[in-house]
Amino acid sequence: MIYLDNAATTPMDRAVLEAMIPFYENNFYNPSAFYQASVKTKMQVESARRKIAGLLKVPADTIFFTSGGTESDNWAVRLGAFSEGEKKKHIITSAIEHPAVLNTMKYMQEKGYEVTYLKVDRNGIVDLDELKSAIRKDTILISVMHANNEVGSIQPIKEIGEIASQNGILFHTDAVQTFGHIPIDIEDCHIDLLSVSAHKLYGPKGIGFLYIRNRKDFGKLLFGGSQEKSLRPGTENVPGIIGMSKAAELSYERMDSDYIYIENLRELFIHKLKEVMPEIVVNGSPINHLPGTANITFGGITGESLLIALDQQGICASAGSACSAGAIEPSHVLMAMGLSAKEASRTLRFSFGRCNTKEDVINTINSLKSICHV
Amino acid sequence: MIYLDNAATTPMDRAVLEAMIPFYENNFYNPSAFYQASVKTKMQVESARRKIAGLLKVPADTIFFTSGGTESDNWAVRLGAFSEGEKKKHIITSAIEHPAVLNTMKYMQEKGYEVTYLKVDRNGIVDLDELKSAIRKDTILISVMHANNEVGSIQPIKEIGEIASQNGILFHTDAVQTFGHIPIDIEDCHIDLLSVSAHKLYGPKGIGFLYIRNRKDFGKLLFGGSQEKSLRPGTENVPGIIGMSKAAELSYERMDSDYIYIENLRELFIHKLKEVMPEIVVNGSPINHLPGTANITFGGITGESLLIALDQQGICASAGSACSAGAIEPSHVLMAMGLSAKEASRTLRFSFGRCNTKEDVINTINSLKSICHV
Repeated sequence: MIYLDNAATTPMDRAVLEAMIPFYENNFYNPSAFYQASVKTKMQVESARRKIAGLLKVPADTIFFTSGGTESDNWAVRLGAFSEGEKKKHIITSAIEHPAVLNTMKYMQEKGYEVTYLKVDRNGIVDLDELKSAIRKDTILISVMHANNEVGSIQPIKEIGEIASQNGILFHTDAVQTFGHIPIDIEDCHIDLLSVSAHKLYGPKGIGFLYIRNRKDFGKLLFGGSQEKSLRPGTENVPGIIGMSKAAELSYERMDSDYIYIENLRELFIHKLKEVMPEIVVNGSPINHLPGTANITFGGITGESLLIALDQQGICASAGSACSAGAIEPSHVLMAMGLSAKEASRTLRFSFGRCNTKEDVINTINSLKSICHV
Repeated sequence: MIYLDNAATTPMDRAVLEAMIPFYENNFYNPSAFYQASVKTKMQVESARRKIAGLLKVPADTIFFTSGGTESDNWAVRLGAFSEGEKKKHIITSAIEHPAVLNTMKYMQEKGYEVTYLKVDRNGIVDLDELKSAIRKDTILISVMHANNEVGSIQPIKEIGEIASQNGILFHTDAVQTFGHIPIDIEDCHIDLLSVSAHKLYGPKGIGFLYIRNRKDFGKLLFGGSQEKSLRPGTENVPGIIGMSKAAELSYERMDSDYIYIENLRELFIHKLKEVMPEIVVNGSPINHLPGTANITFGGITGESLLIALDQQGICASAGSACSAGAIEPSHVLMAMGLSAKEASRTLRFSFGRCNTKEDVINTINSLKSICHV
């Protein structure tokens, strides 16, 4: 089988599993208990937190473990918007955010917030002038994702963060597609809130974190015990935390080489595909994009039938994101980028990862050739 | 080491880990994707859901996977209270609920809800007449835990459920301490919402579920993708779900024999302890209690110094629950039961589990004898 859906989830690294297993077996203690065994577990949780914080070059007490990207996004948007009480009720986001942000925005609108959805250009990039003119006196939060999950376009988060900072507005970025894959400079980008999910970087599902620059004014999404400095209650998912920290460490160690390796696979794929199907269109920014994500609009075949045919040949790709894979509507990302519904319906995402090989690329091209009779 | 803190968390069963590992290694797919490998993963998630539903004798589509007991409790209370919009704004709960319920109640009060906290008697049991007279026309939700996490008292949930049902009020019960340990009859007890956490039944941390009898009128706590019938978004924690299902299956298989085995350990412990320290008081219901939880008020020694001394001899016990183990205040549960602050400060919880032995009991008694010089 050829797995080209690494943007949906990644195979877990064996070293990550090996790091987790002791915390399932012997070191199973509740980190909030009193005895030494539990204190040791707590220390290992804190060591994992410091490791992740170190990779982001931020203080350890800014990292809050959550159940994943969706919870982190919900927390960031809902409590970010509430960080000055209900004094300011305007939020700015982009039209191409993940559903975890977009559907939270809808909820905020029901709660009386006004939300401005920034348009994106044909490359899936927001316009900084539009952002500037969207800012109001009551703008409390800007939430723009670091890189898009469907097309891989990387937003100008440094410029967005500067604009937010100059205007005293909180800046949240959903970094689920980027943490561990490309560098993130929290300081340089003036990021106040950053969402991460471990299973996108060869770590376990069911764990993520939210970076919170200033927890003083930040509220809780969940209420309960005093875990995570009383900001995120619930018995800590210790094996998950240890696994995420290991996955993050590995991803940072190999980031440069993985980047080149994976981008080369993507480039080879696009190059070979254009040779046999010159009519394809590669969506997303040609310059600022994730190394592994190739979002392709095909000529005369629907994405769905192509997906089925690829699947029959053991090739896993995606139409849109996994989160909306069951949906019949065309991708909101592609529509926002100006594609027609017909073009969107002929579009697939191939996302490469560190476990893919050149052979995977060649075999996929050969399959596409035979499926499309070219 | 002797681990007597099974109410805080349980050692994970080896069979549970073995069930989980394939879903970390090869079967890592995102269940929401399109290809066969992913569909197979989805089917295994659904099979786990059916297994859990089968144990509770409820339809599979009433089980919603969450990140654990805290999220389940938050979801049940917040959206249960909102299930008729904001028409009814009165909630009834007990004074001895877990912080995941109690602190959510505080939040609901901030949001304009009125909350009645039922008192408990010296045994930690709510009074049904008090419950009946607390009911108002605008009562939307009754949330009373199945068994208390600190003292192990089991509430009359059948009677509570009947009262709730007769009055058209939703009934939520936090079954974190009971699911997999003692039988739960959802129908007989008229339960509308039931919270569970896997790590209390020899399963993994970071996973739980909420049973929702009628999802039609039930809202979301988190917003995002269309997972869990669009009620609980986020990529499914597949290994966690598989592990929880396996742990639940094992716990139900061995429930009767585990119950007798664990209760015998508790009885032996209390019997032996009374022989050497006749002044001890066993808190909680002498009749309706969890098999493994022994909450003991000692005579002339503070709980904290006793805990430290036990820890030095390799014995893990607890003062209050793990969730408030860092707290200086006396247990809200013991105070509600009528103990003085001094009595509460001299109280420890010993919670036995299926991995404990008779030898553990004897060794703990000997340690307590030597620590207390009796």
